[in-house]
Amino acid sequence: MIEGSNKEIHDSQAKTTLKKLIQDFYEQFESETIPHIVLPSRTKKNIELKEDSDVWVYGDSESLRSAKTVKGATQLLKTAYVVELLIKGHLDQDKSSTLRELYYISENWDIARFHEQSESDRLVEDLEIITGLQREDFHVRPEENGATLFGPIRIKETTKRGERTMHCQEDVGEAGYQIPYNVETVKFLEHDAKFIIAVETGGMYDRLIENGFDEDFGAILVHLKGQPARSTRRIIKRMNDELKLPVVVFTDGDPWSFRIFASVAYGAIKSAHLSEFMATPAAKFIGVQSSDIIEYQLSTDKLNDQDIKALHSELTDPRFDTEYWKDQINLMLKMGKKSEQQAFAGKGLDFVTDTYLPQRLGEMGVG
Amino acid sequence: MIEGSNKEIHDSQAKTTLKKLIQDFYEQFESETIPHIVLPSRTKKNIELKEDSDVWVYGDSESLRSAKTVKGATQLLKTAYVVELLIKGHLDQDKSSTLRELYYISENWDIARFHEQSESDRLVEDLEIITGLQREDFHVRPEENGATLFGPIRIKETTKRGERTMHCQEDVGEAGYQIPYNVETVKFLEHDAKFIIAVETGGMYDRLIENGFDEDFGAILVHLKGQPARSTRRIIKRMNDELKLPVVVFTDGDPWSFRIFASVAYGAIKSAHLSEFMATPAAKFIGVQSSDIIEYQLSTDKLNDQDIKALHSELTDPRFDTEYWKDQINLMLKMGKKSEQQAFAGKGLDFVTDTYLPQRLGEMGVG
Repeated sequence: MIEGSNKEIHDSQAKTTLKKLIQDFYEQFESETIPHIVLPSRTKKNIELKEDSDVWVYGDSESLRSAKTVKGATQLLKTAYVVELLIKGHLDQDKSSTLRELYYISENWDIARFHEQSESDRLVEDLEIITGLQREDFHVRPEENGATLFGPIRIKETTKRGERTMHCQEDVGEAGYQIPYNVETVKFLEHDAKFIIAVETGGMYDRLIENGFDEDFGAILVHLKGQPARSTRRIIKRMNDELKLPVVVFTDGDPWSFRIFASVAYGAIKSAHLSEFMATPAAKFIGVQSSDIIEYQLSTDKLNDQDIKALHSELTDPRFDTEYWKDQINLMLKMGKKSEQQAFAGKGLDFVTDTYLPQRLGEMGVG
Repeated sequence: MIEGSNKEIHDSQAKTTLKKLIQDFYEQFESETIPHIVLPSRTKKNIELKEDSDVWVYGDSESLRSAKTVKGATQLLKTAYVVELLIKGHLDQDKSSTLRELYYISENWDIARFHEQSESDRLVEDLEIITGLQREDFHVRPEENGATLFGPIRIKETTKRGERTMHCQEDVGEAGYQIPYNVETVKFLEHDAKFIIAVETGGMYDRLIENGFDEDFGAILVHLKGQPARSTRRIIKRMNDELKLPVVVFTDGDPWSFRIFASVAYGAIKSAHLSEFMATPAAKFIGVQSSDIIEYQLSTDKLNDQDIKALHSELTDPRFDTEYWKDQINLMLKMGKKSEQQAFAGKGLDFVTDTYLPQRLGEMGVG
């Protein structure tokens, strides 16, 4: 990850890093070594907790990709093609492409073409791991993003059309500020916030805006939109780091939402190489807790078989290996019930902002 | 639908219309008639083409909902509860709620509570039909919206925090202006556009922005995000009506995308009561046409069984009953192939904006 918001320096560093990769191939040829790349093994066994930053990262186990076999050689050829596209197509010309477009572009690469998008997606991930950069640094975009943010903060976004300065309450519509795919283009200018609240559903995010929760409590609201996009996790992480603002996560009370919290706080195994840029280990779960379902007598649905299986699997997930989470998970299994965050509407539309959240924030010492 | 952007007048008219409904019940009681409501039948048979506006609407066939039966009486009781919530909870207090929240709120309504959200959703639709208003007029929101718009137009949005004036190129981030759930709060101030292009995928919408298509061609880009939300269709319709701008729809080339076009242009059977507010019959399909797949030798996927079934069903859908559509659908069936709009990336990232779209716009006489 290249820090800082000077786009030119940013792009030129990305280019240097990518060129180094090709340089290595040349040197291997010159020294009469068979060209190869070394990568950390991307398996569950090779994940470990990095002590200083408290996130899950790859361990020391490595795998080799060598031109010794036809398959390995083809893979290195594809890598070289992709790197050329990223340098000459993206960074030199200040263009970007989606993962899907990248797959289509390869159709002109003869034997180096990808046969499925999963193949090119995977190669982009490999490049992230090898270079220590993120795909956003290479101007590679996802298909859809579109999460939004609303709160007492003024930001400056460097767009292709110039710089845009916006206050995320005063200069945006009712739906908030659209988070761009590459949040490194965003600079935080000044703020008047006490904490960040990341909210799973659009219904609840809109509820908090309508009830003026952001104003009353000095909260920056971030819409997670279910399992959050990389850009959403990255902007939360950056606000937590740079502005020293605490982060609370507000989701439905069910096993899938617990995982949404875990992905904000700890990252995911399949993208452990990104955890340090995207995970916010200091993030705290505000609810819906299993215990809230009982305490507030929320409307519930019965757990189905998938829910129960997911909860059991969470009991062995290292990310949930704390007393607190074991209690919450076991309690949900015992009740056999789950609740949505919008179930608070049963107590009146203001209950969540007048009673529930203030009470929980008090307990957690946030705000 | 209440036109105009004066929120107070708007809300007070919605209230009057809703009160009239309850007034009718009182009058029925007074005249010793069994309380009842009359609704148009919502069946495929009762859909007809309205000649003056060229959209599909309900015909004259009606169905009666009467308190003669316990089921009917319960339904009217629920209706009364919902109307009370909309008047006293929403319009009097300037609040809104999501369809999901509305369902949860009913849990305090004793025998009038809803047992499933589909039941309350349906009642809200009934109220739209009876009153001739839209749920947005009652401040009822969907769960998620979040489509965006980008282009040479200045708008003013009346938010709960005051008025916000924004130019949709100059005052927004790279991701564009977020369309609010109730687009009646948006006023179009001035623009420099020649047409509107509605785009199915985020990848292509971002491509057009990155390539400066909006600037070069005076285009307002609207992201459809797959099957478009009501707010998205309504804002396209309003721009078409009020600004007299032609609308072209740019989707993938497959049967599901043809339906996305149809829902923008003609509306959907299940919401025929909304067609007049949301359908843009003048909208034209720019592509991906079946014939483009051949002409530009795009990358394709094979049609699967669902695709083929969907195409056959479109051949009997009145919305596709034109020479043009029969040709396109039959050609796709003959090829047995479909293509995505991002497949143009195989010709280079600028091909779609430098060659394909200008050529199609020329053929269509737009821009």
